[in-house]
Amino acid sequence: MSVTMSPESAPTSSAPGTLLDLEAAREKRTTTRSAAAARERTAELEGLIARDPGNYRVLTGDRPTGALHLGHLLGTVANRVRLQDLGVEVFLIVADYQVITDRDDAGDLPATVREVLLDYLAAGLDPQRSTVFTHSAVPALNQLLLPFLSLVTVNELERNPTVKAEAEAAVLRQRRGISGLLLTYPVHQAADILFCHGNLVPVGVDQLPHLEITRTVARRFNQRYAAARPYFPEPDALIAPSTTVLGSDGRRMSKSRGNALELRATEDETAAFVKRAKTDAERTITYEPERRPEIANLLQLGAYFTGSTPEGLAEEVGAAGAGRLKALVTEAVVEGLRPLRARRRELASAGPRYLDEVLARGNARANEIANRTLDDVRGLMGMRY
Amino acid sequence: MSVTMSPESAPTSSAPGTLLDLEAAREKRTTTRSAAAARERTAELEGLIARDPGNYRVLTGDRPTGALHLGHLLGTVANRVRLQDLGVEVFLIVADYQVITDRDDAGDLPATVREVLLDYLAAGLDPQRSTVFTHSAVPALNQLLLPFLSLVTVNELERNPTVKAEAEAAVLRQRRGISGLLLTYPVHQAADILFCHGNLVPVGVDQLPHLEITRTVARRFNQRYAAARPYFPEPDALIAPSTTVLGSDGRRMSKSRGNALELRATEDETAAFVKRAKTDAERTITYEPERRPEIANLLQLGAYFTGSTPEGLAEEVGAAGAGRLKALVTEAVVEGLRPLRARRRELASAGPRYLDEVLARGNARANEIANRTLDDVRGLMGMRY
Repeated sequence: MSVTMSPESAPTSSAPGTLLDLEAAREKRTTTRSAAAARERTAELEGLIARDPGNYRVLTGDRPTGALHLGHLLGTVANRVRLQDLGVEVFLIVADYQVITDRDDAGDLPATVREVLLDYLAAGLDPQRSTVFTHSAVPALNQLLLPFLSLVTVNELERNPTVKAEAEAAVLRQRRGISGLLLTYPVHQAADILFCHGNLVPVGVDQLPHLEITRTVARRFNQRYAAARPYFPEPDALIAPSTTVLGSDGRRMSKSRGNALELRATEDETAAFVKRAKTDAERTITYEPERRPEIANLLQLGAYFTGSTPEGLAEEVGAAGAGRLKALVTEAVVEGLRPLRARRRELASAGPRYLDEVLARGNARANEIANRTLDDVRGLMGMRY
Repeated sequence: MSVTMSPESAPTSSAPGTLLDLEAAREKRTTTRSAAAARERTAELEGLIARDPGNYRVLTGDRPTGALHLGHLLGTVANRVRLQDLGVEVFLIVADYQVITDRDDAGDLPATVREVLLDYLAAGLDPQRSTVFTHSAVPALNQLLLPFLSLVTVNELERNPTVKAEAEAAVLRQRRGISGLLLTYPVHQAADILFCHGNLVPVGVDQLPHLEITRTVARRFNQRYAAARPYFPEPDALIAPSTTVLGSDGRRMSKSRGNALELRATEDETAAFVKRAKTDAERTITYEPERRPEIANLLQLGAYFTGSTPEGLAEEVGAAGAGRLKALVTEAVVEGLRPLRARRRELASAGPRYLDEVLARGNARANEIANRTLDDVRGLMGMRY
């Protein structure tokens, strides 16, 4: 439920969809078609970014539901740091309002926000170059929701796959249905991306329909209010390398499943996490992601942190089996995360003042940009009095 | 589509509802029940207001779709001035974002907003005591839409009679369906009312369900985030005396029907309007609102502006017939509106600077209050970082 689409960023439906009517089928075809196009475009974009990173502004973020884990690092955070280090300007939303789209209790948000911020900074996000801000602190961004809501129909919102899945799950659970905030969150996302004229959004293939609503909003706004000279960009999806990290139970790593290894975990906890990881009955280690997902996951983790390849690592372990593989992976993860964890401890031990300053600076910058955009939007819509 | 519910304030469905399922029936029963209760409560409130007007803050407003007409004056504006003069604090929203809930082109908003403002001031709204502001100028008010949307379900929004009627009309017209802004406008209204802790909302009986969503939002917010000490009031409906003014074609007066007499019209236009008004074939004038609605409408107009009663006026005209009635009504309206029109001309001839100042002051005051409320809301929701 955020713009970046980290593993936990979108509310996940715990029940599968029960309908697969013509509409869903059509949607799926569209998604599949655009996935191929988006992958092609991503390759092209990577070339353009490398040549001229200053042309791009990335918008991405997370729901502050807890400290980040290994799945976040490999799935989104590392890619953000990479883009930042290439010279792309990165805006990172801590999507606090999105926490209450699908739950009543947001928990201790100030504490969680600080943990997430620690993870960002420890992973290499540089607050001098990147902007971290919270939704609730930027009124002008949130106001954009209103004009943007006039540009999409309720039908279009209901076709969004996350909204649809949640609505179906609500019916199955005989709940009162989804909240107005959940229905409208694709439009709120459009405001997140467009307030800063973000033109690059790292997403997984499954989140392409979300970005499509942002593109629709930008296009319709331009047609209606800025025909002479388009005001908003139609942002491009930057398809992230699909890195699904599995948790200790063999399912996708997720805080809510309790199967995650947090970045802030100790070395002992890391070792215990790898030890618990599911393997299979075959002794010889081979890299076969489809047939042997748990083994493949360990190989990917080990490869990621040692800079080798899963295939190479599989060959290295071979007949030595899962025990040897786990020992290698534990070592790789512990060593690989050592600098991050050292930075994190250092930042954490310095107390919250620095973190609060980073967030205050980010919020101030986001407000400055949002106020300018809202003023432009008022002008274009004829609402300057 | 505004809080006060002036004749044109809510988008009107041009097609009747096609469904009358159990749900609609239940809703209707609820509405009927609460209409009686609301009328009773209104009588009680009028007593309380007279004794202690300082305890009340009224929130009301209009969509700026054109200069105001006679229907606005008798339906809502005069009542607002009455409340102001009793000592109640009045907040008046010029709901510019609501203009685009159901149309693509908002027209020349700055010009329209000035016309509406001229009408307000000419009718007796005193900017020293009342606050006039535009939606688009108050970001912190608009931000309240986000937490409030988390407190209601899409089902509840879809049950709102205006939303429902518009959705059905969209189906009948084979349009793409209603906009996200239309679906969410009852929640935006909650933000309008609650941002300034408005506790009194003048509405017609048909708009009670709108206010019910505001009351629901306030109640749920308090339960969830301010259980120890309720933060938002659950505002009361102040049922306006039902004054439906008919246009020259015998249908309810409405700018979009082209049957309206604008407050700013000349005396000649006023005479022509009354002359065009429909009457019936019976010579003798009697006050029978059900059986002779057009005659009753003229009698009500005449009585309103002369301070008499429709019954008394009917007796006075009697067998002299519709011609005599129209002459009396023309005289009454022209004389009755003379002071208003004189003030309006005076203000208009002074140029826009004063109007712009009034609006700027109103917007500044609304922002000050909205910022304070949003800060409180952030604190209550644990979103102060």
